[in-house]
Amino acid sequence: MARIAPLSGFPELLPAQRVVERDVIASLSSTFELHGFANIETRVVEPLDRLAKGGEIDKEIYVLRRLQADDSADDTGLGMHFDLTVPFARYVLEHAGHLEFPFRRFQIQPAWRGERPQEGRYRQFTQADVDIVGRDTLAFHHDVEVMTVMVDALDRLPIPPVAFQFNNRKLIQGFYRGLGIGDVTAAIKVIDKLDKLPAEQVARLLVEQAGATAEQAERCLELATIRVPDTSFVERVRALGVTDDLLDEGLAELAAVIEGCAAVDAPSVSVEANLRIARGLDYYTGTVVEIFMEGYERLKSVGGGGRYDALATDGKTTYPGVGVSFGVSRSLLPLLADGVLAGSRPVPSAVLVAVVDEESRTRSTDVAAALRRRGVPCEVAPSASKFGKQIRFAERRGIPWVWFPGDDGADTVKDIRSGEQVAADPASWTPPAEDLRPQVLTPTATPSIPTTTEENTP
Amino acid sequence: MARIAPLSGFPELLPAQRVVERDVIASLSSTFELHGFANIETRVVEPLDRLAKGGEIDKEIYVLRRLQADDSADDTGLGMHFDLTVPFARYVLEHAGHLEFPFRRFQIQPAWRGERPQEGRYRQFTQADVDIVGRDTLAFHHDVEVMTVMVDALDRLPIPPVAFQFNNRKLIQGFYRGLGIGDVTAAIKVIDKLDKLPAEQVARLLVEQAGATAEQAERCLELATIRVPDTSFVERVRALGVTDDLLDEGLAELAAVIEGCAAVDAPSVSVEANLRIARGLDYYTGTVVEIFMEGYERLKSVGGGGRYDALATDGKTTYPGVGVSFGVSRSLLPLLADGVLAGSRPVPSAVLVAVVDEESRTRSTDVAAALRRRGVPCEVAPSASKFGKQIRFAERRGIPWVWFPGDDGADTVKDIRSGEQVAADPASWTPPAEDLRPQVLTPTATPSIPTTTEENTP
Repeated sequence: MARIAPLSGFPELLPAQRVVERDVIASLSSTFELHGFANIETRVVEPLDRLAKGGEIDKEIYVLRRLQADDSADDTGLGMHFDLTVPFARYVLEHAGHLEFPFRRFQIQPAWRGERPQEGRYRQFTQADVDIVGRDTLAFHHDVEVMTVMVDALDRLPIPPVAFQFNNRKLIQGFYRGLGIGDVTAAIKVIDKLDKLPAEQVARLLVEQAGATAEQAERCLELATIRVPDTSFVERVRALGVTDDLLDEGLAELAAVIEGCAAVDAPSVSVEANLRIARGLDYYTGTVVEIFMEGYERLKSVGGGGRYDALATDGKTTYPGVGVSFGVSRSLLPLLADGVLAGSRPVPSAVLVAVVDEESRTRSTDVAAALRRRGVPCEVAPSASKFGKQIRFAERRGIPWVWFPGDDGADTVKDIRSGEQVAADPASWTPPAEDLRPQVLTPTATPSIPTTTEENTP
Repeated sequence: MARIAPLSGFPELLPAQRVVERDVIASLSSTFELHGFANIETRVVEPLDRLAKGGEIDKEIYVLRRLQADDSADDTGLGMHFDLTVPFARYVLEHAGHLEFPFRRFQIQPAWRGERPQEGRYRQFTQADVDIVGRDTLAFHHDVEVMTVMVDALDRLPIPPVAFQFNNRKLIQGFYRGLGIGDVTAAIKVIDKLDKLPAEQVARLLVEQAGATAEQAERCLELATIRVPDTSFVERVRALGVTDDLLDEGLAELAAVIEGCAAVDAPSVSVEANLRIARGLDYYTGTVVEIFMEGYERLKSVGGGGRYDALATDGKTTYPGVGVSFGVSRSLLPLLADGVLAGSRPVPSAVLVAVVDEESRTRSTDVAAALRRRGVPCEVAPSASKFGKQIRFAERRGIPWVWFPGDDGADTVKDIRSGEQVAADPASWTPPAEDLRPQVLTPTATPSIPTTTEENTP
């Protein structure tokens, strides 16, 4: 049989890399729980008509068919979710009678898209979402709250510094309306292209597609260039001379979000108002955010989210929500590929218990059981080969300690890094705390040259 | 829009139920790591030809198609994995150059089957697998090891007592061979039907389908009735008067597994030799096990596994393995539906920080931040309603403590279960340890009447 090739877009981690991913997921979960968010998981499939209800219906969704189905075109009508927002909205509607509102949840699961793979874009990828959803109403202060939670959560991760860039849909819409632009929605879509097109071209598109005059287009571009790390954007917007109620509301909300996030004790997170951030999805109605990772701007955003006044509705009741999503795979896989992050060893064992001969294997398993009773992860050598070979077995796995059972309980344990060997009792000996579990190492803080998707997978 | 109906076979948990599932998964992971097993996750899809390589090729696999594909029959050639063994075997082959053997891994992930849902059988279900795989060879003592690991792991779970029923394929095959049965494989398949058919009918099938004489069939049935909690099965098999080298090997191996598992300090696990256990899958070659849960025998096994001398092969190298799988969904969902297990509250918050008025909300978020710095999960009340209403908000969520910010730092905290209220400082006050996180409760140990699948979902 030929060598098995990796499946493009479906990256898999080696055990030491998985140590990093689990550590990151555990840290995110712990922070979300400190802030009172409950964990849920949703099934991975949704009815196709529900998946099509999101802002973008042209996604590359994977549809399920039963292999044994009579007709090869006989689909189940189910597709795999492409994000965690659509399934969460459905979960809220389906289980509303059993939930208390405002409902605060976090969800860390894979999602799937049949897209062309590239660095940071995969066909299976894990996201971490945190949302607050209300019934009928949801106070604005939850916008500030949910954003500060993600600021706190990302600050605690071993990743490079991240930047939260905020804007507010009311601010943009109010500004365009106050300016007298004909088609506000079209204007937002055009401004969203500022990353890809030169300013003059965007100005021309504003005139052509959004019914703006040349002067209005100029003013839109001026708004979009405002980018400050504090609330000074309020004055700069005012200086553009546009007045509108919705604009006022948006300015106040954005200022509150910026102030709230800046107040978090989070040294590795920076916060900015960036008035060109729009986010394409059409269901955002207030706060919007995109998150970027230092040195990895080429990935575009590693997270984002915002406020949606109608996350879900069953016709009678509307559920407004605010949330933010962090791309676990999108950020971690490039960091792992670049060696910016690594696990200290591929196995949980802190100790290898050597075996003197196969007849006395039970003696070694007894030592291991005693160590485990006190929470020391360990394994017993697979064969009673020469001690030198057993030590090399531990070395290859990064296991720092080797235990040697002795006669009449005269056991010793050796630190194979220093070579130091001491007498030890399995009922009391404990390795140093930093040896107890695999650690997340940050061997280098310098990102390398971009790698291809295939190289991201082990 | 009509009420959203649950999707049959795709159960979802409410937040308090998810507390139980996460607790169980954390406990399993912790035990597996104490025994030196590394965690991996595999992508959820495999090429169809690989999924078809397992013992059963007639499974109801879900096949993926891209929604935007030109032709509705244009499949990706990918199917969702129906267990964790097939993807693990592929992972070993694909990443062999980066792994150290024997490779010890655990994997806790969902799998999918398009089967007809019933209690304990779902279309999406989570399994926890632990395996050891060698390159070319794998010593028998790993059979004992991996089984004792699962005994230890299940003993630590808050579920009803479980029974491990062991057999050995060498024992059965050697016995049949020594007995002179024509078609040993056919005989194993027939004996596997003893659960469903009366003994006389099985005897007749042995004659008709496995080429046995009436006397041989009788002897096969005698073997299959041997079921003992210790190694006395060795004598009882010997008494049947069959001699065969493979039989001897199987007897010795089964005795070692029974002795090893019985020696584990695991009061809620019982261990048996049950010589009618065969397990249908044809790749098992030695130890086989099925796990049953007390009071839930109607679910059939909640776990199982065994030894496979050729878990994977690339033509040049063969990878023997031994492993055992525990059905997390299969066991937990009925226990949750029956109320045998429950989470103590649906939110992680141990404290609700009340808000005096919206102007002083920052005062309350500061208290919450101080509590979180010392690891106390908490949330701030969503609105500055009357304190009675804020207390009821906490009550509905099972949050045990409510914090009242006072003037000049004269804060108090109230245990809303007892009504007791004391002065407290957010920089030093800590709730009792048992209040800190949601607990897994065992409200009743008596299983109820069987429920339908739909009732298992919230």
